[in-house]
Amino acid sequence: MPAQARKRASSRSRLAVDERRNQLLELGLRLFADVPYDELSIDAIAHAAGVSKGLLYHYFPGKREYYIETVRLAAERLLADAELTAAGPPSPELLARALDTYLDFALRHAGAYTTLMRGGGLGADPEVAAIIGATRSALIDRLRLRLGIEGDDPHLLVFLRGWIGLVELTSLEWLDRPSLDRHQLRDLWVRLFVAGLVAAAPPSAP
Amino acid sequence: MPAQARKRASSRSRLAVDERRNQLLELGLRLFADVPYDELSIDAIAHAAGVSKGLLYHYFPGKREYYIETVRLAAERLLADAELTAAGPPSPELLARALDTYLDFALRHAGAYTTLMRGGGLGADPEVAAIIGATRSALIDRLRLRLGIEGDDPHLLVFLRGWIGLVELTSLEWLDRPSLDRHQLRDLWVRLFVAGLVAAAPPSAP
Repeated sequence: MPAQARKRASSRSRLAVDERRNQLLELGLRLFADVPYDELSIDAIAHAAGVSKGLLYHYFPGKREYYIETVRLAAERLLADAELTAAGPPSPELLARALDTYLDFALRHAGAYTTLMRGGGLGADPEVAAIIGATRSALIDRLRLRLGIEGDDPHLLVFLRGWIGLVELTSLEWLDRPSLDRHQLRDLWVRLFVAGLVAAAPPSAP
Repeated sequence: MPAQARKRASSRSRLAVDERRNQLLELGLRLFADVPYDELSIDAIAHAAGVSKGLLYHYFPGKREYYIETVRLAAERLLADAELTAAGPPSPELLARALDTYLDFALRHAGAYTTLMRGGGLGADPEVAAIIGATRSALIDRLRLRLGIEGDDPHLLVFLRGWIGLVELTSLEWLDRPSLDRHQLRDLWVRLFVAGLVAAAPPSAP
């Protein structure tokens, strides 16, 4: 085979490898969102994917690694979507639009979102915790940048982390049982953010 | 053996059984707080407890069941401690005292608290999720009762759930990296609660 053709064939097969890996991760996002981690066996994953266990092990050394990669994919997607948020002068409306994008993601990729936010099957796993922590930090950094929030008083930082936790928990519960419509939920988040930002400031200067 | 003595012996051994089970659960609270669920083998648990694997299986059918019972124990402890909170007329001071009790629990039983709040190793496990959900609901019910918060507007209920999520996340991060002292953290929670309660009300009557 001429070098050129060999190169093409090799890049084609690398693409196929990446595609197959991505398909397996897509499947993982759905599976881990629905089935408890402990109850999902490698056999069941291979069966659902229509591949052999051997092939699955070719891509991922084990279930934990497979799970961690699905969490990483979910985090990348969430951040990529959040990147698209329209820019503009800092305002509650800008925050509302950012939260719309966030809710869009949660609704369109409910499986990925749930897998990520629940810490899926391995909440105490250090690698999963690191991915979730880094995702939260990235979201907070963007929020501060977009909304022009300056300063690093620990009260402010604790509030921002806590508000993200509030959004995570209430969005997860909302996906299960939507007691408000999506605009009401988004507006509630905005009001709690604005009120919290004021309340977070320590009562008197140190 | 006379019936009386047999009864005494049997209740003694039942006590011993319960004690042994409790000791194993105590151990689980520490182990699951420190070691990722997936990496903690039944062998390692039995070794740490100084018992045989067979004895461990006598008390718990498997690792998942063992883990679920440790989460249940952590939840019972948290709620029992929260029960002791002094009563009084609803006020931010009463909330501050309740949060002091909560922080005391988190500090004294850091392992149990972390195991419970992280959803430990099995965040997506339906049984673990049910225990965590029931604990949150019980804490919210008490909070509403103690603070005289009436009404069941979904905005209010979503805020209360969200504020609990905020307290959970920030307390977990605070145990790892205490950027505020405990009184500052508690006062921040109170301010966010009071401000959030006002902000949660929908902007206009429906």
